[in-house]
Amino acid sequence: MPVGTQATVKSITADELQSLEARIILCNAYHLHLRPGERTIAELGGLQRFMGYPGLVLTDSGGYQVFSLQGNVKIDEAGALFRSHIDGTERQFTPENVIELQEALGSDIIMPLDQPVGADATPAEAAQATARSDRWAARARERHLRQDGRRDQALFGIVQGGFSADLRAQSAQRVVEIGFDGYAIGGLSVGEPKQVMADMLACTAPLLPPDRPRYLMGVGTPYDLVASVALGVDMFDCVLPTRLARNNAAYTSTGRKSIRNAVYSGSSAPLDEACDCPTCMKYPVAYLRHLAMAKEMLAARLLTYHNLRFYLRLMERVRQAIREGTLPALIEEMAALYAHEGAAGKGEETARW
Amino acid sequence: MPVGTQATVKSITADELQSLEARIILCNAYHLHLRPGERTIAELGGLQRFMGYPGLVLTDSGGYQVFSLQGNVKIDEAGALFRSHIDGTERQFTPENVIELQEALGSDIIMPLDQPVGADATPAEAAQATARSDRWAARARERHLRQDGRRDQALFGIVQGGFSADLRAQSAQRVVEIGFDGYAIGGLSVGEPKQVMADMLACTAPLLPPDRPRYLMGVGTPYDLVASVALGVDMFDCVLPTRLARNNAAYTSTGRKSIRNAVYSGSSAPLDEACDCPTCMKYPVAYLRHLAMAKEMLAARLLTYHNLRFYLRLMERVRQAIREGTLPALIEEMAALYAHEGAAGKGEETARW
Repeated sequence: MPVGTQATVKSITADELQSLEARIILCNAYHLHLRPGERTIAELGGLQRFMGYPGLVLTDSGGYQVFSLQGNVKIDEAGALFRSHIDGTERQFTPENVIELQEALGSDIIMPLDQPVGADATPAEAAQATARSDRWAARARERHLRQDGRRDQALFGIVQGGFSADLRAQSAQRVVEIGFDGYAIGGLSVGEPKQVMADMLACTAPLLPPDRPRYLMGVGTPYDLVASVALGVDMFDCVLPTRLARNNAAYTSTGRKSIRNAVYSGSSAPLDEACDCPTCMKYPVAYLRHLAMAKEMLAARLLTYHNLRFYLRLMERVRQAIREGTLPALIEEMAALYAHEGAAGKGEETARW
Repeated sequence: MPVGTQATVKSITADELQSLEARIILCNAYHLHLRPGERTIAELGGLQRFMGYPGLVLTDSGGYQVFSLQGNVKIDEAGALFRSHIDGTERQFTPENVIELQEALGSDIIMPLDQPVGADATPAEAAQATARSDRWAARARERHLRQDGRRDQALFGIVQGGFSADLRAQSAQRVVEIGFDGYAIGGLSVGEPKQVMADMLACTAPLLPPDRPRYLMGVGTPYDLVASVALGVDMFDCVLPTRLARNNAAYTSTGRKSIRNAVYSGSSAPLDEACDCPTCMKYPVAYLRHLAMAKEMLAARLLTYHNLRFYLRLMERVRQAIREGTLPALIEEMAALYAHEGAAGKGEETARW
């Protein structure tokens, strides 16, 4: 899922999302609650109409954003009290109103409020936050199933549990017991070593129903994606292709390229010989470099489109590889090109797992 | 001509320029000389190939930009010595090397170096600068016609003369005597009252050969365009549609709209009911407002496309009005909608002329 936090995949139009065959994107309920507000979007016919985008929209609850408002958030069993980062007004998120918020937005897939486990949490803190998230999950489901609610919006559960296999297993069991339309794995790829992420994923994914989508939140590099698929993951969202594009980096069939590199200054070659996107079909890489050096917004736009095409094409290749039994070869290819990315450092020289 | 100073009409692709039927755009030789350099562009096959744009490109010499480098430019009969605004290196522009620069860029229409007359110039200063521009024009033509030069690039002359009808007439006479493929009227719309611009235009335009294009540089509002056409002008360039788009302003069939206005916050109407551009066909104006409030670059992109469509459609209407003899009505329409824009202030309540 391309990330369109504020109801826009940055620089990209709805028509382009269609030409990219992006059938689902992610928006953020926290951001849209603050601006323009769910009432405005509901009155305009929902997010898809608001954006002119005929595909599906998954909204993240925005719990992650709320809990990142350091010093500006009070959490208790009821929910989270916080101040808008835009105008400072006080707001409350509860497991219930976050469902209503996303119902009003018209999200096709709704994510419940959860309490993330901090990267430096003690085992007791991790257990506490996870247990609360699980209780909130039950409240979210109850609210979503209330009599007067809509029936055409899916609700996913989120497995938490920090970096403890036991906690992960407990959380998975509870969330599956509650029962959701799909299952997300949260709280990973938040700065931990890749091998830790891999271990957590390997012990969590098999506990989730095979007939429901599994969604690994906030992941990842091209290698992370294909390796996670091998562990049973079906869905991802990640800002990497769009954010890196705005920092002048391109994902290509020969590895990541920094487009400001002087080596491209006189090159009439396309950005990626193997790519069929308009950026690669139309422009010499020297032009892209020029735009980047001149800080022209067209650089961000052309690279964003290209990087999204790379990611979505990669997922096409994953689906084909699964059908043809060649996923291991695709994992090797991505490992060779991209496994050095996302290493947590401190002795970790590769992010291969 | 949409303005693409750095070889990009900001935020817009070459394909979009085609779909806008923008058959000619303006780039700036000064900017492209400094970055990426004319040699790079020449080696890549010229500006049009570099940009992936199959239409025509007129390059401004960049004299205006050079002479705007206050305190950093030394002018004598040979040309102008200045420092790059990018890296501080010393450069020289002469009437001759500015022609060679644009020949290397592959410009379809080349503009010669001229010395603008400052808005606060004395009559003697204005006369001196204008006389020098006219001498430089002769040198430019000579260089362009040298034996080993290309023959497929047009060279325009520029009429200067400040705000003196006599000087304008002298300059026009000299420039026409030298003989060019087309004639530009420079040094207007630089802060003078609109009526002064109109007077200068009215006395200059008739002195230029009717069988050659007349190009009014750096003008203007929708009203300025249609009113100038009535005085015999054929070509314009102006940053207004693109720059204002980036400041969240839209040209519409009912006047200029500031898209951040709260009145649009809940509106499902298009930006302009009368417009056929994708921005208007696809998105509710409330979405455009949301993008603008959230400072999303898609706002600039969608408004830029719309404003260019408005301007190019206006010129279509001008051509049709000329054929049908209805130009006066179109001038009245634009006067009602746009004559209040661009008034110089200080008692000038309307920019109608």
